[in-house]
Parts: sequence; structure tokens; C-alpha cells
Amino acid sequence: MKIDFLTLFPEMFEGVLGSSILQKAQDKEAVQFQVVNFREYSDNKHNTVDDYPYGGGAGMVLKPQPVFDAVEGLTSKAAAAPRIILVCPQGERFTQKKAEQLAKEDHLLFICGHYEGYDERIREHLVTDEISIGDFVLTGGELPAMMIADSVVRLLPGVLGKEASHIEDSFSTGLLEHPHYTRPADYKGLKVPETLLSGNHAKINEWRNKESIRRTYVRRPDLLKDYPLTEQQRKWISEWEKE
Amino acid sequence: MKIDFLTLFPEMFEGVLGSSILQKAQDKEAVQFQVVNFREYSDNKHNTVDDYPYGGGAGMVLKPQPVFDAVEGLTSKAAAAPRIILVCPQGERFTQKKAEQLAKEDHLLFICGHYEGYDERIREHLVTDEISIGDFVLTGGELPAMMIADSVVRLLPGVLGKEASHIEDSFSTGLLEHPHYTRPADYKGLKVPETLLSGNHAKINEWRNKESIRRTYVRRPDLLKDYPLTEQQRKWISEWEKE
Repeated sequence: MKIDFLTLFPEMFEGVLGSSILQKAQDKEAVQFQVVNFREYSDNKHNTVDDYPYGGGAGMVLKPQPVFDAVEGLTSKAAAAPRIILVCPQGERFTQKKAEQLAKEDHLLFICGHYEGYDERIREHLVTDEISIGDFVLTGGELPAMMIADSVVRLLPGVLGKEASHIEDSFSTGLLEHPHYTRPADYKGLKVPETLLSGNHAKINEWRNKESIRRTYVRRPDLLKDYPLTEQQRKWISEWEKE
Repeated sequence: MKIDFLTLFPEMFEGVLGSSILQKAQDKEAVQFQVVNFREYSDNKHNTVDDYPYGGGAGMVLKPQPVFDAVEGLTSKAAAAPRIILVCPQGERFTQKKAEQLAKEDHLLFICGHYEGYDERIREHLVTDEISIGDFVLTGGELPAMMIADSVVRLLPGVLGKEASHIEDSFSTGLLEHPHYTRPADYKGLKVPETLLSGNHAKINEWRNKESIRRTYVRRPDLLKDYPLTEQQRKWISEWEKE
């Protein structure tokens, strides 16, 4: 997979793309990153990429020319049609399902705005996906773009070792994870539940299943709506409802 | 404000904390960042910070000792009680409202896990806030922690210049933003709406208001539930409903 980032702040990327799973994925040749300053594609002598909004108002707006030309430059020789992704609060909410879809692509290209609005023609005529990371305001699209890249790259075949795979549990089972404990069994008076120390695997599994259901019921009841609950799980829930 | 990050991957932070608004906020002494490798707080000779889970299973779990001791070390001399934040899929969903709350604090401390689960005693007895950034799986808490920091720091007094302030519109008005356009009026045949070029400010304002309502109606109807619509806005929506 190829992932390009168009940005005015290329220095934000190095530490993240050069660490941990994203570096390992490059070492394994599962992914190839390219960070491009689209200011280089500006066709005017001052290298400006933005201008005042038509109709007046505060703030600046990214011009179509540098962004269209940068995308053209990066994709004209590409074998596969890339997904061209704009990160913005108006987009569809990013989810694990979207990460799984993007992981099947050959080429992703993120357009990262910073401070500014985008000229609407970029949105309408260039971009294939508008993705929102949530209902909050950020200074730029760089951090969300790196986050989306992380969630996608870790799904590529061969990227994750076994040591990292378990934390997928939360969204692969459709429930929140049960609590975890490790040594010591007593940390300054704070104790690990006895069941987990018992060596009785049937009981341990039941405890974990119950705590997973409990946490989901308390924190994210919306996830239970479409979840195929067993008879036993329904009983637990109706007991908690009475409490 | 003081913001500490506990992490095993300190190299991920430099490029982000040293760019753009986050660097400017440090220059203006509005915020002071500290990135701490909590492996330094491990009390065993191999500097391990994780161990196998009680009860068996794949993956590793962060031990209580290095995390409790790191937080103790960083906060024991602090004047104000810090908010101790765990980024995890089980937490409350991060929103602009939460960013506004956190912006009133003096000291935030983020615990960034990586690959692994946390010992439950960290969650129950140390952490004050569990925050989720969305329903998807990431390799670690570093990117979400930096993102939350960005959204908080840009709210601190004096940090944002006027040039950046307009992009707050989306969540300060409760609606999605209207489209923006800048020069040229005709980019390879793609044209700016005539109203925006008219110089008629009453018409421009009406156009923007209508497009803002339209975009919110189409993409995020949930935001309109609690929005105090005017008579005119209701009319527009009932016209779109008929279409």
C-alpha cells in the first residue's frame, strides 16, 4: 500500500511514521509513506496556497490550484485509482469498518488542511472520501490523518505480530473488553479478583464474559442493541437492571 | 497549563509538539509540555513495564508499579491536582465540550498505552478521566493524546491568532459550516456560485445560512434535534423533505 500525505507541516510526520508499527510496516515493505508539502505545487511566485473567501468573512481558504496540481502530480502515474481523503468535521465518522475498507485499497492520499477552510471545488471534484474523527475542533488534519493511517496499516497482512493482536478484541467481538490484571496479585492493598488466580478456566472465562457484558451495558449500551445475547447474558443484564 | 505525556515512544511527540500552534503556545508560555518515558520508573533491573495477564490469554498487560510511580513522581510536588487521562476505547467519547472543560484545568497528564492492556487497578485507582476518540483500534494512545492536547491548547487564552479562529465555526454555532470559495471564480470550468460574487451581503448571508442548514440536514441531522430553527429554516427543511 502507498500512503501520501499532502500537508504544509511535513515536520509533524517524521516522529510518528518513524516509530513503532508504522516504521515496522515500512521495513516489511507493507506500506510506503510519502509526505509532500503542497506549497511546492503553488504556481505563483510567493508560493501562496490560500486566499480570502469570496463573500467576505474571517479566515483564509485553501485555493484549488495547488491541491489539484499536487494530487495530479502524485497520482497521474499511479496504477490504481487512489482514495483521496479529506479529514474534516463535516465528513462521515471514522470507524473500524471504514479502516477495514481502506485497508483493501492500494493507494490512499490524505489532504491535510491547517487553520483554514477548503475551497468547495476540492471537496466536490477531487476528494473521494470526507472523514470526520469526531465533534471537536483541531488545528489541522495532520494528526487525524496519521491516526487513520495507523488504524489502516495495522490491518495489512503481516504487519502485526502476535504481541499486539489482542487489543483488537474490543471491536472484533462487538463488546468492550473485560478488565485485565497482571502481577502482583496485591499491589499496595489493591487486589486482583480471586477468580483470575483460581486456575479454573471455565470460571475465568465466565468472569471475563460477564465483566465484558457489564462494562458494555454500563458504558456503551448502544453496542448491545444489535448484539446476539445468550440466555445467560440476558439474565445478568436483567439483574443489573433491578439494582 | 502543564501537560505531561507518559509513553514508551517519546520520539513520536517531538515533531507534533514542536510545530504550529503547539509550538507557538509554548513560545507564549501558555503551555508547558513534558514527555516522560515511564520505563524509567520501572523498579526491576530489566526495566520491564508489562507482564502476562492473570487468567491466561494473548497479549501483555501494563503493570501497576511503573505507572503509579511515574504519576506519583510527576504530581507529588504539583500545586493543583492534575487530571489523569487514559485514552482507551472504553472511555467517554471526546467532544468539544470535553475540550472546553479540560482547558480550564492547570495540569493534564496523559497515560499512553501501546499495544497492551492496562492493569485494571490503574483505571480504578489512578485515572480521573477515560476518554475514547472513537470506535476504532489504534496501536497506541500517543496520537489521540496529542490530538486532545491540540484541541485543548488552542482554546487557551492568547494562543490562537485571528487567522485561525474562524474554523471553530462548525461547533460553536451547532451547525456544519457552509461551503467556502476563493479565487479564481472559474477554475478550469468549475465556478463559484454567483451569489458569492454579487457583493450583496444580505443575499450572501442568506446563502451561507441556507447551505449551512442544508449540509447539516443532509450529513448530520442529529445536530438539528436540539437546534433552535427559525421559521425560514423550517421552511427550507420541509422543502428538502419533499424532494
